[in-house]
Formats: sequence, structure tokens, C-alpha cells
Amino acid sequence: MSRPLILVSNDDGITAPGIRHLVNIVRELGEVLVVAPNRPQSGMGHAITVGDTLRLKESTIFEGIQAFECSGTPADCVKMARHYVLKGKPQPDVVVSGINHGSNTSISVLYSGTMSAAIEAAIEGTPAIGFSLCDYSSEADFSHTEEVVRRITSQVISKELPRGVALNVNIPPKRNQPVKGIRVCRQANAKWVEEFDERRDPNGRRYFWMTGNFVNFDKGEDNDEWAIANNYVSVVPCQFDLTAHAAIPALNETWEILN
Amino acid sequence: MSRPLILVSNDDGITAPGIRHLVNIVRELGEVLVVAPNRPQSGMGHAITVGDTLRLKESTIFEGIQAFECSGTPADCVKMARHYVLKGKPQPDVVVSGINHGSNTSISVLYSGTMSAAIEAAIEGTPAIGFSLCDYSSEADFSHTEEVVRRITSQVISKELPRGVALNVNIPPKRNQPVKGIRVCRQANAKWVEEFDERRDPNGRRYFWMTGNFVNFDKGEDNDEWAIANNYVSVVPCQFDLTAHAAIPALNETWEILN
Repeated sequence: MSRPLILVSNDDGITAPGIRHLVNIVRELGEVLVVAPNRPQSGMGHAITVGDTLRLKESTIFEGIQAFECSGTPADCVKMARHYVLKGKPQPDVVVSGINHGSNTSISVLYSGTMSAAIEAAIEGTPAIGFSLCDYSSEADFSHTEEVVRRITSQVISKELPRGVALNVNIPPKRNQPVKGIRVCRQANAKWVEEFDERRDPNGRRYFWMTGNFVNFDKGEDNDEWAIANNYVSVVPCQFDLTAHAAIPALNETWEILN
Repeated sequence: MSRPLILVSNDDGITAPGIRHLVNIVRELGEVLVVAPNRPQSGMGHAITVGDTLRLKESTIFEGIQAFECSGTPADCVKMARHYVLKGKPQPDVVVSGINHGSNTSISVLYSGTMSAAIEAAIEGTPAIGFSLCDYSSEADFSHTEEVVRRITSQVISKELPRGVALNVNIPPKRNQPVKGIRVCRQANAKWVEEFDERRDPNGRRYFWMTGNFVNFDKGEDNDEWAIANNYVSVVPCQFDLTAHAAIPALNETWEILN
């Protein structure tokens, strides 16, 4: 079998340490193409660039690896890789995104640019993985992510994934004990409760910083928050069908305005 | 019963015709508060403002209605409404977003700023509806949306919604025949196939416009694409749990790297 083509993107931008780690790990597993944002795109969710132009520029940042920096969002990067850089050529066998500097567990998956790149790939029918390190420290240690990323990416390459599924992989911060293992989980029931830090600019005009506290309502042990708290790597298979299928019969039975 | 508090947002910006129509319809149904972006935010998906500041400014654009324009995304608007404007006060009974100028059927729900405002409300446990008019024409006729919006919003106020569910409501373009009715649907299996229109700026540097063709793979009659094509209003109940629950046992059975 020829070496698989691995498309790499992220949301922290092409110069972030996380994508450098990711490229260095997956280049051992196949041919690598990088298309990543030219600046941080954290919290971009599944944004795409509508009504504005896009730039794409070849980058020499990764020695021996074809790479492009894109002015758009992570989802734009995957679209440009597929439909411009690789137009008329073999498409990626797997898309990997990250390694995000910070957690994307539970509800954060919705806000995550890292995962939007992976989900965009899943929409195209390509197996995809978003990797995040649950450590916000500016000196976050990525060394323990190497084995996790290699094992999970290899597993996805050899076993593939159910069509339309992208994996949301979160890796615990480096602790004194090694990671206990890898667990398949569901998205925990948790949310952010925001606060707005109100300030005045030098002209006396009001502005805000959004801050937030994470609140976990989930008492289960089969979710990603539990896994990270207990030093396991969490793997949540994610889909792009947002339909709340269970609600369809409920609405059909109770609503009076249907026909 | 006191009049319900209805929070209105959108992604086309506070000056868009669609939000004016929406405010004029729902002000008959309750007390209205508007917090909407100060500029178009189409395609923003579930983006939030991270690592940058936010502005919020009172607006007199809607006579007799308290309104604010926000520099952030639709999801930011809902967060600021709840945790700043309404901090310590009664929270909204329902959140309505739109009326979006253009379709948000099928996969577009992921890219939709309109729906991100509704889903953000659902995360908070508030019933929410995103309304979109499937007409991209600059002279789109919104007149037939009035009855649809009033009926669906009234139904949600009186019957509520299953917790964590936001409705993605798409309204067909105005045709010679009146809308046939309202259908509860699932998200159609369809996607956009992008093309990149490559141009040169006045300095000779390359830039791109992203364009796309919508491709519908879905042959069913229970999805939102079918409904719109057949002149029905589509109502898709949406959730924010992205877990592909069916994939969990499949991964647990086939992966060799779990423990």
C-alpha cells in the first residue's frame, strides 16, 4: 500500500507549536500536506468566509513538507486544500487538526476551530481527527501527546471510521503519572457561564472582555470530562447531523399547526 | 400570564430587513429585547469572540424596543444579552433569530450564524428558533413569512420545546401558490461543493472568491430540502450534542488501542 496522504490543519495558526508537533508526528505515517490559518482562529466554530476574499500563500515553515497559509478559517483551509490545492488530484486519506493548545471537551466542540476542520473533512467523507491538549499554560508540555497522536492516527488509517464521523480527541495535561489509556466517550453535558469584564478605553468608551467559568452537570463516567479528569485520553466520535431525531415524534404529536 | 420576554438576534446585522420583519412580528407576542451584530456575520457558524474585545451600544433603530448592537458574533450576542444586559433580571422565555436572508437548510445549519444564536440559547435551556427565508434575491419578498413566524413562535411559547432543542425553520421563497403548510423534518443529507474563483489584485497578487454548488444526495421526503422544494415550511429540531452515539460501540469493538 502506498503511503497515505495526510492533510494537516489547525486553528491556532500555522506558526503555533501544536501544529509543529502534529506535523512531526504524522510525517512518519504518510505524505503530509499542510493548509492552516495564517493567524490564530480560536473560537471560530464552523465559520467560513462568505462575502470576503481569501488569500493562500505557500509556506516553507515545515522543512520538506508542502504547506500553505490561508487567510481564512479552519473550515476554509480544508475546503481550499480539497478544492484548490488538490483539485483533480488524489484526495486526503485522513485529515488531522491541532494539536490545539487548550481543551475542546464537552460543549467546547461547538466553538472549536480545531474540530471544525475535522468536521468539514467528515462532511466530505474523509476520516478526520481533531487533537487538543487540555493545558492552557503558555509552557504546555506536548511531549506525551506524541504516542497518543501516533496510535490514534495509525488506528484511523488502518481501520478507517464510520462515514461522516470525525473524532474529537482530548489529551490530559502532562502529569506525574503517565496517561492511563484511551477511552471512547460521549460529549459531556457541561457549559460555559460567561462573565463580561467591563472596561473603558483611553477615549472613555466602554468595551468588554468575555470570560467564563466551565460548569459540568454530568455525573456519568462515560463522557470526555470524566476521562480527562481521570487522566485518560478521550475520543468522542462526532457527527454533522444536528437533527434531534427524538424530538421529531414529540413535535408531530403535540403541535397543532402542522399539515 | 405576563407577556413573555422574547430575545431577538440575527446574523445579517441589526440593520438588515429580516430582523426588522422579525421584530415587527414578535412584538405582538411579548416584550422584545434585541441584541444583534453591528455588521453582517453570515457564515460565522458557532464562532465566539476569544482573545479580542467586544463592544455593545444601545440602538434606537426599532421604535419603542430596547435594542443593542454588538461587535461580536450571533453567539456572542446571545451571551451578552443573558449575562450582561439581563444579568440578575428575568431571562428570555424564547429566543428568535433571523429572518435570515437566504437558506439554512441541510448542512448549511453548521455554517449558519442565524442558527448559532438559536443553539446558544438552547445550550442555556431556553427555547429558540432560527428563521430563514430561502430566497437570496436582493428584493426578496418577506410578506408571506409573517404568518409562519407568528404561528411557530406562538406554538413554541405555548407548548415549549424539549430541553436543549432549537428549531431550524426555513421558509420557501414567495411563489404564486401559498405555502402548503409546516412540516417537522430531519436535516437533509446534502453538501456544498466549493470552487475557488482565482483573481489578481491591483498589485498582481493572487486572491480567491469561494463559490459553491449545492448537491443534494437525499432521496427522502422527510427532510428539509424536500419540504422547501415542495413549498412547505421546514422545521428541523436541532441539538448541540454532536456525539455520534451509534459509532461508540463500533469503535469499542474494533479498536485495539483502548483500555
